[in-house]
Amino acid sequence: MLPVVLDCMGGDHAPREVVAGAVAAARDHGVPLILVGPARRIRALLAEYGAGDLGGRAAAGLSIVHTDESLEMGEGALASWRKPRSTIAIACELIKHGKAGALVSAGSTAGVVATSAVRLKTQHGILRPALAVTLPTIPRPTVLLDAGATADAKPEMLVQFAHLGTAFAQIRLGIERPRVGLLTIGAEPGKGNKLTKKAHELLAASPLEFAGNIEGHDLLRGSVDVIVADGFTGNIALKTMEGTLRVAVGELKRALSSSRTAKLGAVLQRRELHALTDRFDSDTYGGGVLLGLNGAVVVAHGAATAKAIAAACKLAFDLSEGRLIDRVKDQLGAAAKPSRFRFGHHPEAKGDGKAVEGRSTETRPDLRAEIREPVPEPREQPPGDGA
Amino acid sequence: MLPVVLDCMGGDHAPREVVAGAVAAARDHGVPLILVGPARRIRALLAEYGAGDLGGRAAAGLSIVHTDESLEMGEGALASWRKPRSTIAIACELIKHGKAGALVSAGSTAGVVATSAVRLKTQHGILRPALAVTLPTIPRPTVLLDAGATADAKPEMLVQFAHLGTAFAQIRLGIERPRVGLLTIGAEPGKGNKLTKKAHELLAASPLEFAGNIEGHDLLRGSVDVIVADGFTGNIALKTMEGTLRVAVGELKRALSSSRTAKLGAVLQRRELHALTDRFDSDTYGGGVLLGLNGAVVVAHGAATAKAIAAACKLAFDLSEGRLIDRVKDQLGAAAKPSRFRFGHHPEAKGDGKAVEGRSTETRPDLRAEIREPVPEPREQPPGDGA
Repeated sequence: MLPVVLDCMGGDHAPREVVAGAVAAARDHGVPLILVGPARRIRALLAEYGAGDLGGRAAAGLSIVHTDESLEMGEGALASWRKPRSTIAIACELIKHGKAGALVSAGSTAGVVATSAVRLKTQHGILRPALAVTLPTIPRPTVLLDAGATADAKPEMLVQFAHLGTAFAQIRLGIERPRVGLLTIGAEPGKGNKLTKKAHELLAASPLEFAGNIEGHDLLRGSVDVIVADGFTGNIALKTMEGTLRVAVGELKRALSSSRTAKLGAVLQRRELHALTDRFDSDTYGGGVLLGLNGAVVVAHGAATAKAIAAACKLAFDLSEGRLIDRVKDQLGAAAKPSRFRFGHHPEAKGDGKAVEGRSTETRPDLRAEIREPVPEPREQPPGDGA
Repeated sequence: MLPVVLDCMGGDHAPREVVAGAVAAARDHGVPLILVGPARRIRALLAEYGAGDLGGRAAAGLSIVHTDESLEMGEGALASWRKPRSTIAIACELIKHGKAGALVSAGSTAGVVATSAVRLKTQHGILRPALAVTLPTIPRPTVLLDAGATADAKPEMLVQFAHLGTAFAQIRLGIERPRVGLLTIGAEPGKGNKLTKKAHELLAASPLEFAGNIEGHDLLRGSVDVIVADGFTGNIALKTMEGTLRVAVGELKRALSSSRTAKLGAVLQRRELHALTDRFDSDTYGGGVLLGLNGAVVVAHGAATAKAIAAACKLAFDLSEGRLIDRVKDQLGAAAKPSRFRFGHHPEAKGDGKAVEGRSTETRPDLRAEIREPVPEPREQPPGDGA
């Protein structure tokens, strides 16, 4: 049972809400966590949020790894090299060392994606990572990927995204054979652009549960479990949906306060309207999961509250426990081609069947110095997890 | 003052609603029209909708060109060759002969776009056509193009779409220098996929009023007048927006009838709620205009009512009178490159500076037989417009 590593300095309300979320995740969901950030500050917040009052096991599951550096909200790909001691970089190293199973951050999506892609590397056989988001469809959510990690994709990558999405939906939605749709224009197989036409052919020939083309109209219809797109298209669709919902909710509020009788009506409906706007609020479904790397990376919404952080930690833990990485490996099976980004530290590459534990990081010894022994949290000592 | 040619057999409610719309366009907006379709049927409907009661000028502006053939809703690109006597094919010939200035159809978008692109050909210098739609933004509408005519576009085509959209917005929105945005992911110039990064560079160097990148979030924000995208991306964005609004309105209605007090509230708000759902109903802003051809093609919504048809006829007439084609020509100016689809009948290609009037169609003499003399409408004879 590997702990989840939590970036305490990512997000608009870091570190306060993040640490509060960590305490809630430990208390309510029993998630073991490594908190990365300024140790003194984190220790003080843990005390404030009552981590000392947690039961033995929950409290024992909270440890701290110190660093003073973090990514700013505006920082992107370059920062991953410029700041080797950032919270995200350290968190990735903990996963590579086999000390943690997944990562949670509410930092800038671009920064988290770029840094973790560079540091965790893609899984053996995976060409590019994909960002998965969960849409608020009824009766059950739909997974959309890629929401922006890989802007220029090839047909083969879309097929891999379908495999990643399938493995993710198996854990996240609890569906054994998720139905996969391809986001394109026109419902018939021959419709779309060159990329999606070719991807359609490949998906139809794959062992996946491919349900055909999905149009923009159907994004929120819940007709499939996984919707596949290149990162450019997926991001446009996601943000268009979010922007449209925001406008619709805004216009609704405006309409309902435009006359005295309408205002009176709104008072009568406040419970229903609140539930509606809440469902369409991207904070409640926001964030994404970066798939295809050697470790699941949960990117929480920048404005995430303690509750959202706790939910993200729970999801990361479920993905780690659900053996996301192994599921993807199984899916790709014998058909997996060597990754363009394969490096020596992949166990598979060394013919070593063992899991992530004990990977070599001799190539970056300067980082190891930063990974300190867990700092005891306020009242209880964590068990020696050797991080 | 060239008439607008109207496909009487396109759309779910053709020919009844289409002919009713023609009468309304003539009566309310003074639009001169050529009605293409089964002459006997059209004549009967014109009588039914009171075309005989129109004043002299309006009645004189209505003429009929007979054909029995039309495109079915499912028919696409091939039908344009398979059916040389379809209402759309005949309408295109009328424009090529200089007998009409623009075309209106409520037929299937794919069929109308494919047929008119093949028959009208792209304007001299234009590589590909683009479908423009008008989004219901506040305080004024935004033009989005391409909404699906050209799925695989090159950066140079996106720049041409920006020129087409600018010319269209000048007439449609009455703005002299419309602000143009590029639909992509990420607000900064360096963000996007390869296509939009290159297009950004070209747009920034163009004489257009380029306002930079637009994200999916901003589609309905009204921050620019024209939003440029390739046909794949534009279609995904448009349909995602439409689908999301449909879900939002549906959920709103469901929420407001989920309890007795909420229902009572809705009664108090019925005026406001009606205005809101009406604004978000794609029927009220639906349809698009195919730009870049030798004649504007207005594609009305398939479910268009008489009112929507009348509005489409008015728009087509405005585009013709606003000299859309000449505006595009002026915009491209000396920088225009020879079109890959240039044919001998372009006046420019023959060094003939004159407008569309009197173009040669000797290449397809079989069609000419179908273009009959206008059939006199019920009471008044049209002036000899020689169609």
